[in-house]
Amino acid sequence: MRTLKITLAYDGTAYNGWQFQTTGPTIQSTIEKALQQITGQSVRVTASGRTDAGVHALGQVLSVHLETSLDDEPLCRALNANTPFDIEFLNVETVADGFHAIRDAKRKRYRYVIQYGSRRDVIGRAFNWYVYGPLNVAAMKQAAEQLVGTHDFASFQASGSDRKTTVRTIYELCLAQFTERGADKINIEVEADGFLYNMVRNIVGTLVEIGRGKQDIDWIGRVLAAQNRRAAGVTAPPQGLFLLKVDY
Amino acid sequence: MRTLKITLAYDGTAYNGWQFQTTGPTIQSTIEKALQQITGQSVRVTASGRTDAGVHALGQVLSVHLETSLDDEPLCRALNANTPFDIEFLNVETVADGFHAIRDAKRKRYRYVIQYGSRRDVIGRAFNWYVYGPLNVAAMKQAAEQLVGTHDFASFQASGSDRKTTVRTIYELCLAQFTERGADKINIEVEADGFLYNMVRNIVGTLVEIGRGKQDIDWIGRVLAAQNRRAAGVTAPPQGLFLLKVDY
Repeated sequence: MRTLKITLAYDGTAYNGWQFQTTGPTIQSTIEKALQQITGQSVRVTASGRTDAGVHALGQVLSVHLETSLDDEPLCRALNANTPFDIEFLNVETVADGFHAIRDAKRKRYRYVIQYGSRRDVIGRAFNWYVYGPLNVAAMKQAAEQLVGTHDFASFQASGSDRKTTVRTIYELCLAQFTERGADKINIEVEADGFLYNMVRNIVGTLVEIGRGKQDIDWIGRVLAAQNRRAAGVTAPPQGLFLLKVDY
Repeated sequence: MRTLKITLAYDGTAYNGWQFQTTGPTIQSTIEKALQQITGQSVRVTASGRTDAGVHALGQVLSVHLETSLDDEPLCRALNANTPFDIEFLNVETVADGFHAIRDAKRKRYRYVIQYGSRRDVIGRAFNWYVYGPLNVAAMKQAAEQLVGTHDFASFQASGSDRKTTVRTIYELCLAQFTERGADKINIEVEADGFLYNMVRNIVGTLVEIGRGKQDIDWIGRVLAAQNRRAAGVTAPPQGLFLLKVDY
């Protein structure tokens, strides 16, 4: 039995998220089917974190135990040959037994892409959130700074979650403006020691309420202090979210 | 009866191209249906040029004759409200009678996007052509320069076309490299007084053969001189192509 660490990218548009579902294909079921075709074994893969339907990844990491005579490189090529073009395996590495993609993750980085303004960019709608009208990006940046550091992020956790602790450390939370095809866009990148369920999308939804001028900059401090999901803004939609990397 | 000049953008992924088809929706049929819903009239719209299935537009122009009490701005809003999100109307303008989107076009500009290298960018595959392996972009640039000016572009016209003349003037043909999500990409922009059917895609396919080193830089001059479609390279696939603008 070998333990493998597998790094991959995917366009989540066509999938019902990461996890096994009874309806429709998931990233997990597609990969497990490919591994069965290649190795003849029915195995279960573990991702660093589940991504919801429509969420993308540029550097998702999996762990899996399996027996195969294929070396790492040929196995990576075989995985690419046996999966659709919207999943791309970047690296397969044989690692020490006991490696676990969730438990051993030390840090993760996500990107969220917003498009805003009076005109929708018709190209690439599956890869950003279109917010109609202007956004005060300077105010959003100031608000974002207040989330950096170690805090209880209970207000930004999807209701109904049951994590043991809701304290996390955000190392970096940056907003960068750019234009693409004449449309104004914002990349929001956030790196932390871990994320609560929907945490990035809830932070983005909250920042957008400030950007729209519905709330002032200091509101985000009150949201954080409330430790209550109802205090925060809307959940930003999934298609703007990209899992960039996982550090071990 | 008013004559309207309508400017629009679209993601062509979900459509069977521009023109009316018996199977599947087209951009044209979708727009004509919307105009019927808004004005109650069955009208025919004329585009500056037909785009093939999977081809996109950031500045397509239509002409149409119709009767409506709606002013230009509210008609533009009504069109956006009555069409899917992958079509975006940018401008509606009442123009002099006799304006014709094809006949009066003086200049057009297209962009073609290539992604190349050993690793496919899984995001946005519907908006570029993935070419596996390295490309010699400097050689492609030198070859492209030989197409600028007034030439007979018969070698770059889809076989079976019946244009009166195959002489066109290319004012500009530029290649610009950039990276996106770690992937190497090239924007090829070409502006001319008109284009033969599949001309941009045939030029791109020919440049890629030079970029791959399958042909030398001077080959493109021989292709041009041959005035024969069989002399040129492959037709690049549709999803990398964007109609950027039409000048009148």
